[in-house]
Amino acid sequence: MINIAVLGYGVVGSGVVEVIGHNHEEVSRKAGEEVRVRYILDLRDFPGDPYEDRIIHDFNTILNDPEIAIVCEVMGGTGAAYQFTRQLLEAGKSVCTSNKELVAKHGAEFLELAAARHCNYMFEASVGGGIPIIRSVNTALTAEKIESVTAILNGTTNYILTRMAGEGADYGQALKQAQELGYAERNPEADVEGYDACRKLAILSSLIKGKNVDAGQIYTEGITGITGADFEYARMEGLVIKQLAIGKMEEDGSVLAMVAPFLLSEEHPLAAVNDVFNAVLVTGNMLGDVIFYGRGAGKLPTASAVVADVIDCAKHRGKNVICIWDREAAKAADVTDTKRRFFLRAKADTRKAVEETFAGGKSITLPGVENEFGFFTRELEEKDFDAKCKSMGDAVLNRIRLL
Amino acid sequence: MINIAVLGYGVVGSGVVEVIGHNHEEVSRKAGEEVRVRYILDLRDFPGDPYEDRIIHDFNTILNDPEIAIVCEVMGGTGAAYQFTRQLLEAGKSVCTSNKELVAKHGAEFLELAAARHCNYMFEASVGGGIPIIRSVNTALTAEKIESVTAILNGTTNYILTRMAGEGADYGQALKQAQELGYAERNPEADVEGYDACRKLAILSSLIKGKNVDAGQIYTEGITGITGADFEYARMEGLVIKQLAIGKMEEDGSVLAMVAPFLLSEEHPLAAVNDVFNAVLVTGNMLGDVIFYGRGAGKLPTASAVVADVIDCAKHRGKNVICIWDREAAKAADVTDTKRRFFLRAKADTRKAVEETFAGGKSITLPGVENEFGFFTRELEEKDFDAKCKSMGDAVLNRIRLL
Repeated sequence: MINIAVLGYGVVGSGVVEVIGHNHEEVSRKAGEEVRVRYILDLRDFPGDPYEDRIIHDFNTILNDPEIAIVCEVMGGTGAAYQFTRQLLEAGKSVCTSNKELVAKHGAEFLELAAARHCNYMFEASVGGGIPIIRSVNTALTAEKIESVTAILNGTTNYILTRMAGEGADYGQALKQAQELGYAERNPEADVEGYDACRKLAILSSLIKGKNVDAGQIYTEGITGITGADFEYARMEGLVIKQLAIGKMEEDGSVLAMVAPFLLSEEHPLAAVNDVFNAVLVTGNMLGDVIFYGRGAGKLPTASAVVADVIDCAKHRGKNVICIWDREAAKAADVTDTKRRFFLRAKADTRKAVEETFAGGKSITLPGVENEFGFFTRELEEKDFDAKCKSMGDAVLNRIRLL
Repeated sequence: MINIAVLGYGVVGSGVVEVIGHNHEEVSRKAGEEVRVRYILDLRDFPGDPYEDRIIHDFNTILNDPEIAIVCEVMGGTGAAYQFTRQLLEAGKSVCTSNKELVAKHGAEFLELAAARHCNYMFEASVGGGIPIIRSVNTALTAEKIESVTAILNGTTNYILTRMAGEGADYGQALKQAQELGYAERNPEADVEGYDACRKLAILSSLIKGKNVDAGQIYTEGITGITGADFEYARMEGLVIKQLAIGKMEEDGSVLAMVAPFLLSEEHPLAAVNDVFNAVLVTGNMLGDVIFYGRGAGKLPTASAVVADVIDCAKHRGKNVICIWDREAAKAADVTDTKRRFFLRAKADTRKAVEETFAGGKSITLPGVENEFGFFTRELEEKDFDAKCKSMGDAVLNRIRLL
């Protein structure tokens, strides 16, 4: 019998209990022993809940129970969750989490601690929900030198951009739709400003590099500046707009990590990833491209990933599973040094200046639109592009990178 | 230091040596120790080859070397490969293989033997080349009750169908192109008749069910009967034709497994999988759909998967990793009992008879084509459909299932 504890009886926590209850036979068979939820820690009571008798309010009950070897931390935040996780790992108990904020911030520290205490810190659910991307990077694509990861890691922004592309909704309408459907929170900042994707990218890039990629150093740009007009120009050129998280392992050992909206060809495999779906394209030096696609969020897919971690911990009791993510900081590449093409929209009367400043690019106009035009530059360094935009005062209305 | 042996210095065997050589640092770091190829068993000599000094001709050298704990069987076939694998596992040496024929036939037997001898039999490369689908089913999607797998598992047939769809090539032209590019063998039977996909589906279905799904009992139909005309009707209706391998875990405990060409909507995620790419769509009861996509064959992607297995074996020396695939036969569901819609082409003068026999369906005609027509039936049992077709003598020219 494997007794586990669940910290936090919110959306993911109740999902964990549900997955273990509903798939009890499969879970126990894969774990090699029966898996049972002994404690659910929450500040609240849940009168009438089928698991009412497991609800406790004192963390020490879990910490001091020698029969609890695996704990799911699904409470979120970096306060109590940090303290609890440290104490559990120090006591040699494995921790499985969906808390991406905590993993991005303290993953290296917890992995080091788990290795020293012969237990495990696992976080499959922290990136891509139910898509097994963490385990694939850690245990499947191990013979590869992974060169880059290009991913749609935030379902909310992907939903909003899909609506804007398909129905010509403007950003505000699409956000409202997302909120009505429960895909976006009332305060959507973490999603639409790219912070959520940034944390997930920090985790993925750290695992690929084996060193710590600090989320605070990742260039992060949200989707709030994208307009319906941008989509009209994109469509004319066979392009789509997606919010991408990109982690590139550079030849010089540095990591180029960024989260931003990008224009990409309709033929690109990520272009077809719509609505709340996530996808991760991993490029390895032997494999070429592999793509993982699925629901990046949601109660049950996320809980399923947490429970898969529980099973893995059960199969490795007393044994630390190698996971290379050192505390040493990875060298960050400077985004402004990278070269790429850009799209910009500018006021109609600046067309001559834009075409001169960005010689070698291409203007396009929308039928019936006379006060502005679109322009695709040739390949330029970001800092060069920035300087040129700045030199033209307020001529440039919006700008989006091309993949 | 982890010393390994490679059985067979053909395409995959030389790929394994190349991956370990080229990604030596990554491979050794992930394995926790340096990985080195000590022996390469082949009947031939390779004068001038950089690994010439590792080539041996006597299998017993490997079997009797106590420092060899991991062996890659990449020689293919079910004769010597079977004997060698048995002897190695009996001696407690782990075996990693790309030999899908052997895995499909003896997987359950070898897994049982490996468990008894505290070593491992791993076969990530046997399905989907470099796509980590075996490991995902075994170690990542473990909290799921997997309901079905729908997959494009053969790159050769997918390439041929892609050419037929895109350029209107007929089957013979497309096959010739595939042969010229090295995607199809001179004798293409194993690919175009579906046998290769059938073996891979047997492996995947066995792992999902946990019982043995015999390849010989899987309904298997090739693509040789698909014509350019079929694609023209498909296009008119927004459909594509793909060779699919489907494994469905039925409510009654049986497994419905089949390999056949299917018509599916252009909007279906597998419709966009083109050329030699493979993709596996797994449907779980908690996760919903997850898709894995990548190169399903090729020297380096396949070798990368074999080496990932070597690393996993290195991390689990003396410990068997749970892999549930019992020797007990899974109950096979009867394909003729399943219900679906069908497309058929028939001679023009039988239109009235077809429309009467398959009442509730829909005829379509191609502009300028007068000697035949297409017809989509309503949902029918396969055996009912078969009987109705038979009742009309030689009226029906071709028939394809709808997904």
